[in-house]
Amino acid sequence: MPPPFTVTFSAGTSGPWHIERISTVAGKGLPAATHLAMTDMPDATWRLRGVVSHPRYSTAAELKELAGVQAGLGRSEAMCAALIPIRKSQTWWSMAQDERRAIFEDRSRHIALSMKYLPAVARRLHHARDLGEPFDFLTWFEFAPEHEAAFDALLVELRASEEWKYVEREVEIRLTRTG
Amino acid sequence: MPPPFTVTFSAGTSGPWHIERISTVAGKGLPAATHLAMTDMPDATWRLRGVVSHPRYSTAAELKELAGVQAGLGRSEAMCAALIPIRKSQTWWSMAQDERRAIFEDRSRHIALSMKYLPAVARRLHHARDLGEPFDFLTWFEFAPEHEAAFDALLVELRASEEWKYVEREVEIRLTRTG
Repeated sequence: MPPPFTVTFSAGTSGPWHIERISTVAGKGLPAATHLAMTDMPDATWRLRGVVSHPRYSTAAELKELAGVQAGLGRSEAMCAALIPIRKSQTWWSMAQDERRAIFEDRSRHIALSMKYLPAVARRLHHARDLGEPFDFLTWFEFAPEHEAAFDALLVELRASEEWKYVEREVEIRLTRTG
Repeated sequence: MPPPFTVTFSAGTSGPWHIERISTVAGKGLPAATHLAMTDMPDATWRLRGVVSHPRYSTAAELKELAGVQAGLGRSEAMCAALIPIRKSQTWWSMAQDERRAIFEDRSRHIALSMKYLPAVARRLHHARDLGEPFDFLTWFEFAPEHEAAFDALLVELRASEEWKYVEREVEIRLTRTG
């Protein structure tokens, strides 16, 4: 399906992903739940919506490099996943495109850092801010159990970056596939 | 109200703006209606939603220059308005940020061209693509009757630009304030 398309993450008591833990990294957390589905379940404990959309910061050269190395979702060996909803501050969103890009890549190396973990970690970004959702982005990651330590290292690197100074709410949901 | 916030344009038989004409510029048009309101009216002939959001292409220098010269909506002399919904092609949205910016400003001078018509023409952009709406952008313009010819000239300039080669649907709705 070509973008844009909306994905609803539903957390509750059923779904193909088992929730191992929900950790509050910054700001308000999310209620406990045992399972997650990537479908709209009206009886969910909580639901988060986001849109898979066009690239906002990547240059053509970066997109080409990413396309050459990144993996898709749904690999059989990718039994681990993480959903990381974040919200950035009003200061971040008040900045112009060139200012945000300078922090995002020139100084925080968001794309370059992430590139080191490809293709082990597959990733899909969902934009939520314009939908009036409580988070700005929902990022979904999938990886094999043997790459869990690498994924943890990626999170440490990103959270130490200048870009993360603008993250005012962040929750980390770690999951394993049930089937 | 700070962005993001959603605006619904409702066209029908009532509302503070009288529709003078609805012209199809490219692609499929919109049904006839006599009035427009910037509120969600469930019995409307058609409704279009968009989000007033953060800047996507403007640099800090451009935002500063715009802030120094642009006018707000709702000026008493601004009895004329235009609502221009457009949809861009898949080719446009597949491009990287630097490629779109190069077409948008370096080659099409979208911001620079528009700047010449400030503060006569006030403008507010609404993003609609990620909402699953039929258009990508809804731009709302307000101006005094004596600036109508200037506004027409702005449209001619923009439509002659390289950026407009990627516009596959465009409707122009011209209005006058009833009160």
